[in-house]
Amino acid sequence: MMAESEKRLLIAALGGVNEIGKNMYILQYGDDIVIIDCGSKFPDETLLGIDLIIPDISYLLSNQDKVKGLVVTHGHEDHIGGIPYLLKQLQVPVYASRLTLGLIEIKLKEHGILRETVLQRIDADSVLDFGTITCRFFNTNHSIPDCLGVVFDTPEGVVVHTGDFKFDMTPVNKQYPDIHKMADIGKRGVLVLLSESTNAERPGFTPSERLVGAHIDEAFGKAERRVFISTFASNVHRLQQVVEAAERTNRVLSLLGRSMVNVVTVAQELGYLTIPEGMLVEPEEAAKMPPEKVAVLCTGSQGEPMAALSRLASTNHRQMEIQAGDMVIIAANPIPGNERNVSRIVDNLYTLGAQVIYGSRSELHVSGHGSQEELKLMLTLMKPDYFIPIHGEFRMLHQHRILAEAVGVRSSHIFILNNGDVVESSDGKVRLSGRIPSGQTLVDGLGIGDIGNVVLRDRRQLSADGILITVISLCKTEGKLVSEPETVSRGFVYVRDSETLLKEINQHVTAVVNKMHEDNINQWNVIKQTIKDSLGKILYARTKRRPMILPIIIEV
Amino acid sequence: MMAESEKRLLIAALGGVNEIGKNMYILQYGDDIVIIDCGSKFPDETLLGIDLIIPDISYLLSNQDKVKGLVVTHGHEDHIGGIPYLLKQLQVPVYASRLTLGLIEIKLKEHGILRETVLQRIDADSVLDFGTITCRFFNTNHSIPDCLGVVFDTPEGVVVHTGDFKFDMTPVNKQYPDIHKMADIGKRGVLVLLSESTNAERPGFTPSERLVGAHIDEAFGKAERRVFISTFASNVHRLQQVVEAAERTNRVLSLLGRSMVNVVTVAQELGYLTIPEGMLVEPEEAAKMPPEKVAVLCTGSQGEPMAALSRLASTNHRQMEIQAGDMVIIAANPIPGNERNVSRIVDNLYTLGAQVIYGSRSELHVSGHGSQEELKLMLTLMKPDYFIPIHGEFRMLHQHRILAEAVGVRSSHIFILNNGDVVESSDGKVRLSGRIPSGQTLVDGLGIGDIGNVVLRDRRQLSADGILITVISLCKTEGKLVSEPETVSRGFVYVRDSETLLKEINQHVTAVVNKMHEDNINQWNVIKQTIKDSLGKILYARTKRRPMILPIIIEV
Repeated sequence: MMAESEKRLLIAALGGVNEIGKNMYILQYGDDIVIIDCGSKFPDETLLGIDLIIPDISYLLSNQDKVKGLVVTHGHEDHIGGIPYLLKQLQVPVYASRLTLGLIEIKLKEHGILRETVLQRIDADSVLDFGTITCRFFNTNHSIPDCLGVVFDTPEGVVVHTGDFKFDMTPVNKQYPDIHKMADIGKRGVLVLLSESTNAERPGFTPSERLVGAHIDEAFGKAERRVFISTFASNVHRLQQVVEAAERTNRVLSLLGRSMVNVVTVAQELGYLTIPEGMLVEPEEAAKMPPEKVAVLCTGSQGEPMAALSRLASTNHRQMEIQAGDMVIIAANPIPGNERNVSRIVDNLYTLGAQVIYGSRSELHVSGHGSQEELKLMLTLMKPDYFIPIHGEFRMLHQHRILAEAVGVRSSHIFILNNGDVVESSDGKVRLSGRIPSGQTLVDGLGIGDIGNVVLRDRRQLSADGILITVISLCKTEGKLVSEPETVSRGFVYVRDSETLLKEINQHVTAVVNKMHEDNINQWNVIKQTIKDSLGKILYARTKRRPMILPIIIEV
Repeated sequence: MMAESEKRLLIAALGGVNEIGKNMYILQYGDDIVIIDCGSKFPDETLLGIDLIIPDISYLLSNQDKVKGLVVTHGHEDHIGGIPYLLKQLQVPVYASRLTLGLIEIKLKEHGILRETVLQRIDADSVLDFGTITCRFFNTNHSIPDCLGVVFDTPEGVVVHTGDFKFDMTPVNKQYPDIHKMADIGKRGVLVLLSESTNAERPGFTPSERLVGAHIDEAFGKAERRVFISTFASNVHRLQQVVEAAERTNRVLSLLGRSMVNVVTVAQELGYLTIPEGMLVEPEEAAKMPPEKVAVLCTGSQGEPMAALSRLASTNHRQMEIQAGDMVIIAANPIPGNERNVSRIVDNLYTLGAQVIYGSRSELHVSGHGSQEELKLMLTLMKPDYFIPIHGEFRMLHQHRILAEAVGVRSSHIFILNNGDVVESSDGKVRLSGRIPSGQTLVDGLGIGDIGNVVLRDRRQLSADGILITVISLCKTEGKLVSEPETVSRGFVYVRDSETLLKEINQHVTAVVNKMHEDNINQWNVIKQTIKDSLGKILYARTKRRPMILPIIIEV
């Protein structure tokens, strides 16, 4: 028997609201928890040295026996990147469409946990039974094939999670958005809609991916020598259009970059990408062919310094090099924060004599996310009683709220959440009710969650002004200095320019330690803090810099 | 008598080509050198801890007696920011228009060198005589008043440097571009044109600053409570339009941010900005007034973390706070690299309940730089025999070259320079000839040029994975360990999580040192390197991180 207090539906975000990335949502009714997505995101410039950010899953760990399944909407990193880290701590079956599963499998293999994981393929017709919660699906389209929206039947009513979507009525792969099904779901009544907000600030309707195909074709038609084209590896639709442009201009195709090879392999195996027999050749082989017969698909459209395009631009790619007259197409817009890196690459490519097609005016990229008119269309189709805008920073959620109000959702029925906020439905009422633990777990090398504010604060100080270490040897019996302090700095000043400064530092430290010894002050902490404070002032006066000062006391 | 070899005109960039910022050009004929501008630029994310970048001026220092004057085109940081650093090393008279001089004076005062500097005010009618080189000027317009283009009469012919410009035919301050004079200069013949390339990638014609005024007016008209508006302090035209919008809506005006106060004070004193009597009030006073009566002009439109707008958004400004219903206008587009910071501010402002107007669709910003049609207009007016595109990264210079070719400049007469490249004109021929020293001088605190690659490389390693220091005390007489190593880390791992690791490290170091002592290896460098290498492997295996390892040997 379920207790009265458990007869309620809980909805919460563990990641994905007030941020772009690491999307992860949960639905709970009584003893049944279903997870939707488990993404990662890349650190911004303040998280020095961090490799990846994943959601804090402590709520799930303390409710392990209730977690019935992880449903994945599609195969982008911000929806699947956290899965290996989740599965290492929590055994839960994973449900995803064919291509999504293929991409998850690559990750699990890399982490060595593919064999022990239960993976189940679903499609838009699947029905999953998680006790009190039943899941159904509908097709959407986006910049990767095989995207699903999720419909949850719960004792409180129907909850819909859109995943990422646009309404591309002329999709490249014939994966049409399932508008009739959506209309039907809306007609039967939706209690709560969770809908993505990435482009909520953008007016109008996002153009079809086919538009990009037309421009790729045009560019290939003009190219007189080799064509290099860089785009998101996961945008299989676009890859297909590149294949077709290469075919029409009688070019072979080579792949550069690990993720490009991975995705093409999986997408081809699963039938999402059709490449003519013999078209794919190894880069070494392509490098020997006549330039007008060669096209190259490569990673690095965001200017990532270690990816293929960046290496090509700085002429240190192992297998190929850009030659004067080659055409380079960057078929992606830089994500905010990446503009400088992409610009640097364009500059380098021009210097090599390449013809470069880039930038938003080139029309070689369209967004995978629906703009305002499409978000209103989804809201209109679903006619939800309550609305939770998801996937986006606050200003996007805020704009999405305005759109929802415009199509008739009541203001008091719209919830803008923080990660961890819980929306509860019980006794016919939906309301905000409390919080569950949430946050960001930082992955650095093999360490997961072992980097905290102290370490990051130290890294920030170290990065700005370096460190100065002074080793003080004290006599074990008498507590006074046995030799001159040993002072070393890194990232602070040139050693050869700073002999006078080092001498002054050593004299100062010696004086401080001697004085404290005379005054009978022997607590090491006090000595260290006194040195830090007084030395900090001297260094700032001399250099206007604030290196980390680290006194080390040795007893000999 | 001038030697034959000196009868030649040299043109070179010390900064400003293949980059945005730190513009500095020189013209030399025989013993006469004239400098045009001396700018600074802000470091990118790879230059950890650096405050400012200025041009390398070693060529000028080794030709001190030849430097006749510094001519400044306008008062933006990328044209005046390096002046105090130049003047501290080189006595040279500075020539600039009224507002530009006012802004330079602020800098010189801050650096305590105002009194010993020779400053001379010029305008479009001035003629300066630098021996073999004569300078004349023409008015241009840009996002700051009082901009000049420079015409150099030299024995080899006329050289024109445009400074920054657009063609705003309806300027806010009646400072019209001097098109007739430009036409006249072109008619009499220009040997070499140096023209700015900032917007060479942008098609069309940059809109007039008046467009922004109309949108500011509209926004002020809709505001029901206080209006906060943030823009570049130096855009005096825009400040004037804000003043007028405040006047029309019966609001007082407060200023937040040091550079806003500085520029408004100077611009008002010099008559570039007209503010009605009694309109300016202190922020503390404004905070007490009815909200519909208050407008606030503030710095921070680029999301600078320490500027007024950022402090307001994070509710830690000393003097004012944003209230629900206030309107915040960001009248500037983020410069590439600043998007994330600006977005964060917008999110915070929305969270505070403010109405925010931002982004390129708001039309609250127009560029101060001419687009492609204006660059072609300048080229057409000047009809130069030779052309050097300046002010811009390589792709911009490259696009500007294409524009010049389109209006009839011969391809072989166009030079895309690197900083330090010298263009020489002699015997009626203009050609690339050699290089002079150039580069970036890094300013960090009080240190100028004392930070080099070693320090920066150290800062990068420190920022990514921190540092591990292990102090080894060796016996002075016998050279063996006298106590356990003392190991400390910062920015690497949490200390409380890493006791086992620290223990392993100390055991390892002890073993290495003991083994080397047994093997009679006493060179400290060898001992240190052995510890670094072997410890590095252990740490990477345990953590997949590569902290800087710093062994310090103490002899006791």
